[in-house]
Amino acid sequence: MAGRITCLKRGTRTVHHQKLQHVELAIGIDIGGTNTKIALVDPEGTILGRTHISTSDQEDEHHFFNALFFAISNLLKKNPSAFHLAGIGAGAPSVNEIEGTIENAANLPFSPRVEFVKILKEQYGIPVFLVKDSNASTLGEMRYGAASGMKNVVLLTLGTGLGCGVVMEGQLLRGEQGHASEAGHVCVQKNGRDCGCGRKGCLETYVSATGLKRTAFELMSRTMKASKLRTLSFEAMTAKVISDIALQGDELAKEAYDYTGEVLGQALADMAAWFEPEAFILSGGLAAAGELLFQPTIESLEQHCLAFHKGKLKVLPSSLGENDAALLGAASLVWKEGAQRAIS
Amino acid sequence: MAGRITCLKRGTRTVHHQKLQHVELAIGIDIGGTNTKIALVDPEGTILGRTHISTSDQEDEHHFFNALFFAISNLLKKNPSAFHLAGIGAGAPSVNEIEGTIENAANLPFSPRVEFVKILKEQYGIPVFLVKDSNASTLGEMRYGAASGMKNVVLLTLGTGLGCGVVMEGQLLRGEQGHASEAGHVCVQKNGRDCGCGRKGCLETYVSATGLKRTAFELMSRTMKASKLRTLSFEAMTAKVISDIALQGDELAKEAYDYTGEVLGQALADMAAWFEPEAFILSGGLAAAGELLFQPTIESLEQHCLAFHKGKLKVLPSSLGENDAALLGAASLVWKEGAQRAIS
Repeated sequence: MAGRITCLKRGTRTVHHQKLQHVELAIGIDIGGTNTKIALVDPEGTILGRTHISTSDQEDEHHFFNALFFAISNLLKKNPSAFHLAGIGAGAPSVNEIEGTIENAANLPFSPRVEFVKILKEQYGIPVFLVKDSNASTLGEMRYGAASGMKNVVLLTLGTGLGCGVVMEGQLLRGEQGHASEAGHVCVQKNGRDCGCGRKGCLETYVSATGLKRTAFELMSRTMKASKLRTLSFEAMTAKVISDIALQGDELAKEAYDYTGEVLGQALADMAAWFEPEAFILSGGLAAAGELLFQPTIESLEQHCLAFHKGKLKVLPSSLGENDAALLGAASLVWKEGAQRAIS
Repeated sequence: MAGRITCLKRGTRTVHHQKLQHVELAIGIDIGGTNTKIALVDPEGTILGRTHISTSDQEDEHHFFNALFFAISNLLKKNPSAFHLAGIGAGAPSVNEIEGTIENAANLPFSPRVEFVKILKEQYGIPVFLVKDSNASTLGEMRYGAASGMKNVVLLTLGTGLGCGVVMEGQLLRGEQGHASEAGHVCVQKNGRDCGCGRKGCLETYVSATGLKRTAFELMSRTMKASKLRTLSFEAMTAKVISDIALQGDELAKEAYDYTGEVLGQALADMAAWFEPEAFILSGGLAAAGELLFQPTIESLEQHCLAFHKGKLKVLPSSLGENDAALLGAASLVWKEGAQRAIS
């Protein structure tokens, strides 16, 4: 296999020689606005080692890649056994999956177009795969998590914004230029809330950590109901704070989750009309609220879905958690099944 | 090839014997609420013969199948040359593509579940394929029409209702139970118009021949603007009448198309966020209005789509027309490329 890297610890050559044909590992990379996580992963999804670097502290992509290469080098050195590095898989925001590039990433300290796949291939000489972060999470949940064994799945990552990955018949939806499944920017309310994309009423202005806060502020403006949320500024408020206060019985905080679930359930009903997945997988900070979000979401979905979907649509929490789903999914791109349609 | 039917006209055996290895034909069937069209088609999409039977006049599916078999028999007899019948492809409403059945078809004189594929296979002993009507039209346009050579396409049939077929990377979207791409029942207006599906604000209550009439009636109720449409009852009005009157300069009729195009354009912007197709193909009676519909639709799409989609999304009229797209697409299921994922 061309370009395969064989890592041997000093003194282990004889001992591990026979294993060399079998132990293949991949590097998974999950590039986020604050940190970039890196892991050494086996085909079964076991993380054998992990590290991270700061993304936001890097001056530009050159500094980022230097830090990344240094971190990978250290990670590989730490692994006690011999192995072949079969490839690298990465998930990132603003990815052009067709080109293997990261483009116009608002939250990364990068130039408008970073040739991610090309740069890593030149550095390591092994297959490199790049998908958008929500697709990486989707692949992770499909291969090792809540969507294991399923063929038709819609995953939503409910963080600061709303990310989405759609798998139909085992294949990620990509679209003509790699921009498919932009669920965060589907309109759910004509002339609704202003969205960062310049339009109004996008799903993520309601269903995301930020959307939840906006709902809490809308509720505080509409009524004068007492609530602990009234002591917090917009910047101080988080989805976690709202869920903590809701669990303490704060009605307004509970209403904020109810409304978010109602909007999400209606959106899932439309997604069922488009995709009819076996399950919706919810991940990210907002999904961590559990029943607070899931219960009104499922009620609303059952109320709004088409007759032949009633009672048949599963809404499941991610089982890998937001920390590992994208890392594992990205690494899984290296193994055949996941790599079939990815950039290499 | 097991089950292949060889048709030989009397006296032609010697003449055509050498051709037998080459001439393969398929039967395409397009089952509609009023009529069922049947055609004998070659792999290049040439219709060598066609016929039709009434659907609505049949008492039940048994009468329907008797009439269908008789019509097919006559069609085959009329074809002057020898050929192999390679298979049968059909498009119909209310299809369960996974099961090969037609289920709960509101506009067909059928029992709740008709084992279409099984019945035809028993009758003819050759491969039989069944897809929903809008998927058949999509396959027709992909193979022989406006979407020829494209891999990512969304087709909308704008007739009495709104049908849809989505092709991603050359494959039809089917969903877990074969109910994907139900674009007609995606919500575009919260608490909007009543839909036949029991919900409110579905896309087809605005964007379809019926939706256009409802818009004309809404406009007549909102203003007292003079219009020839005021002389027509709801039942007497058709999309064609509204377009004829609009082309004569009737402002209200023109406004009805403008509003329909505005809603459609917004919906296409959302579809672009989901699928990012190379093109949207519009077919059916409403699309026949041409610029009256296309111009406001494209304006609205460009206004509402995401920044990176602006100027890149094609909106094209069907080039096969509603009569032949579904017939040809259904027949094309018989040839390898189209049949890969169909029920056989």
